[in-house]
Amino acid sequence: MAATSQPAPFNPSTRVLLGPGPSEVPPRVLAAMGYPLLGHLDPEFVALMDETQSFLRQVFRTENRLTMAVSGTGSAGMEAVIVNLVEPGDTVLVCVNGVFGGRMVDVAERAGAKVHQIERPYGEVFDPQEVRDAVSKIRPKVIGIVHAETSTGAWQPLEEIAKIAHEFGAMIAIDTVTSLGGVPVEIDAWGIDAAYSGTQKCLSCPPGLAPVTFSAKAAEAIAQRKTKVQSWYLDMQMIQRYWGSDRFYHHTAPISMNYALREALALILEEGLEARQARHMLNHKALKAGLLAMGLSYATAPGYELPQLNCVRIPDGVDDLVVRKRLLSDWGIEVGGGLGIFKGKAWRIGLMGHGSRRPNVTLVLSALETCLIDLGVKVTPGAALAAASAAYSA
Amino acid sequence: MAATSQPAPFNPSTRVLLGPGPSEVPPRVLAAMGYPLLGHLDPEFVALMDETQSFLRQVFRTENRLTMAVSGTGSAGMEAVIVNLVEPGDTVLVCVNGVFGGRMVDVAERAGAKVHQIERPYGEVFDPQEVRDAVSKIRPKVIGIVHAETSTGAWQPLEEIAKIAHEFGAMIAIDTVTSLGGVPVEIDAWGIDAAYSGTQKCLSCPPGLAPVTFSAKAAEAIAQRKTKVQSWYLDMQMIQRYWGSDRFYHHTAPISMNYALREALALILEEGLEARQARHMLNHKALKAGLLAMGLSYATAPGYELPQLNCVRIPDGVDDLVVRKRLLSDWGIEVGGGLGIFKGKAWRIGLMGHGSRRPNVTLVLSALETCLIDLGVKVTPGAALAAASAAYSA
Repeated sequence: MAATSQPAPFNPSTRVLLGPGPSEVPPRVLAAMGYPLLGHLDPEFVALMDETQSFLRQVFRTENRLTMAVSGTGSAGMEAVIVNLVEPGDTVLVCVNGVFGGRMVDVAERAGAKVHQIERPYGEVFDPQEVRDAVSKIRPKVIGIVHAETSTGAWQPLEEIAKIAHEFGAMIAIDTVTSLGGVPVEIDAWGIDAAYSGTQKCLSCPPGLAPVTFSAKAAEAIAQRKTKVQSWYLDMQMIQRYWGSDRFYHHTAPISMNYALREALALILEEGLEARQARHMLNHKALKAGLLAMGLSYATAPGYELPQLNCVRIPDGVDDLVVRKRLLSDWGIEVGGGLGIFKGKAWRIGLMGHGSRRPNVTLVLSALETCLIDLGVKVTPGAALAAASAAYSA
Repeated sequence: MAATSQPAPFNPSTRVLLGPGPSEVPPRVLAAMGYPLLGHLDPEFVALMDETQSFLRQVFRTENRLTMAVSGTGSAGMEAVIVNLVEPGDTVLVCVNGVFGGRMVDVAERAGAKVHQIERPYGEVFDPQEVRDAVSKIRPKVIGIVHAETSTGAWQPLEEIAKIAHEFGAMIAIDTVTSLGGVPVEIDAWGIDAAYSGTQKCLSCPPGLAPVTFSAKAAEAIAQRKTKVQSWYLDMQMIQRYWGSDRFYHHTAPISMNYALREALALILEEGLEARQARHMLNHKALKAGLLAMGLSYATAPGYELPQLNCVRIPDGVDDLVVRKRLLSDWGIEVGGGLGIFKGKAWRIGLMGHGSRRPNVTLVLSALETCLIDLGVKVTPGAALAAASAAYSA
């Protein structure tokens, strides 16, 4: 059992992360990741948990007591929401217009729910009327819907759908993995019962935690469960005793990840939610103007494009991987490929959190233009940058 | 929605982490936490995953293909092992001699298993014969047992028990959360079918990942399941398509945590497993000699004390919290309190990974001596340090 290898030092290349996440992480958050550790029951760490809950409530725009970070990535947040709200045999309606709606179906089925789904083609969003029709027929306990569909860049309006849920006595659970911190998320004003997110998108924190929030009604439904939550690790009744005033040991929290989340949220509050959303919108408009000037088109329904995730069609005859590999090798730029039926057919260009900055817009437009021209696509040199610049000046 | 607060900077105190984990993290690992991010499908990150798997196999002492890090803390590792190996209605035998054996019972019940348990008082370990008796009667599909019981400091011998499991066609799943990297863990030589660990104990990495390994037999059992794994997030059949050559997207890996784990494992391999185990044993012997010289006694059965987790009885008349609060406030030392029935009755002094060093042994003995003398406990000043020093010279 002597030392069996002397591994080479790890030395990651510097990337410009313009995919669907992880996004670029600001220096203050990276620095927080490297702070020495406190114990998970240390009074200073407990104070940090309290502060993080307060910050999360501000960012989620809610007074919900049951607001905290689950110790896993965004998908663990999805599973935490579903397995806590759903008991075996419960009826759940999931609105599916992309990969993450589909994932919600899978998770709910594994939780023993009777799952009904309504579908929309990739890139489209749901109309309140079709949700009303389904809800009035199915009478679900929970409606699951994705606010920002990371696989298609579609931005789902939720206010009307939340009203419909409550009209029929259902709870509404939303996926805000890609929306939180980038576009308005109004948990209380909209009447959302449960939401989950991830740290690595518009919060600009490394991946590893999943912010969640539950309304009083949802918390009560969890408290009144007849069966144990199938996941011990994600059981909110146990987790809230650790995050709550009991401080009852449940599991060892990912200390450093919580440092980073606290710092990322502090940066968001320092910037201000409105200013941050405006920044995301401005850089999106510039990027979009540039992409359109380059002859590209969005795969998302017009008017529903997420500013932080731009899903564009790959031009005919252009090979997805050739372009993405070159972006990575020549410029260090990561752009996302298509997911699900969009695989090979769309690129996903993220301008999330700290990554939503003019230098990144300029760089990705310039690099993409070079790639396309080299591949023989008819592109007017300089048109993209001119259009982007005009958008910044508008 | 203007900025609603200007949070004060987070500035954690420097702690000496001598509890049951998180343990002290070496500078190289903390530095890796702060590296800029790669995407989770970036070729450089994929290479890091491969390297991490190779390192984990060396540390687990196994050739198991299905060896990787689950994206959650140690308890998520426990749940991953149980929910993948167990289908509803399966019979499981759990050996319970502390909190973490008890947790395994809870997790297995939530997975729909018919759970039988045998019990030993806190601090004791199981004898192969009693396991044989139970197995021959119950005929379980899976036997769950804790290698290093973090709540009691008990070190469970496993070789004979693994043989018994195989004699009766059962699989054996072990908890190595506190053992891996501190004492020998020999997955292949012992014939272990599944094991999980955590990063924040003897691997000296921040908490947030759970290394797991499954034997070929266990992998086959997972492949042959009749039902879907109840947890989408922890479904090894899906996770292995991401960690395997497919690189099929499952969830966004906690990038920075994986940087840190890779670095922590590299440090272990550079030190060598044998040297590392010897270091843990040497510092344990010195600590133990000092604690005994101070008049303290172990709560763990003689001969089965874990070197990395020293569970000692709190002397009569001494208040647990008074001492632990003073250790923290005056020296920055974190020592663990008792868990379960040991609450208020035992301290858990961890010398784990990077924390297993002579300065820490000296510091905790000196600080504890001061506390006890101040509280009127009859202690011979200097006896602890002299005994520890003698152990180092032996």
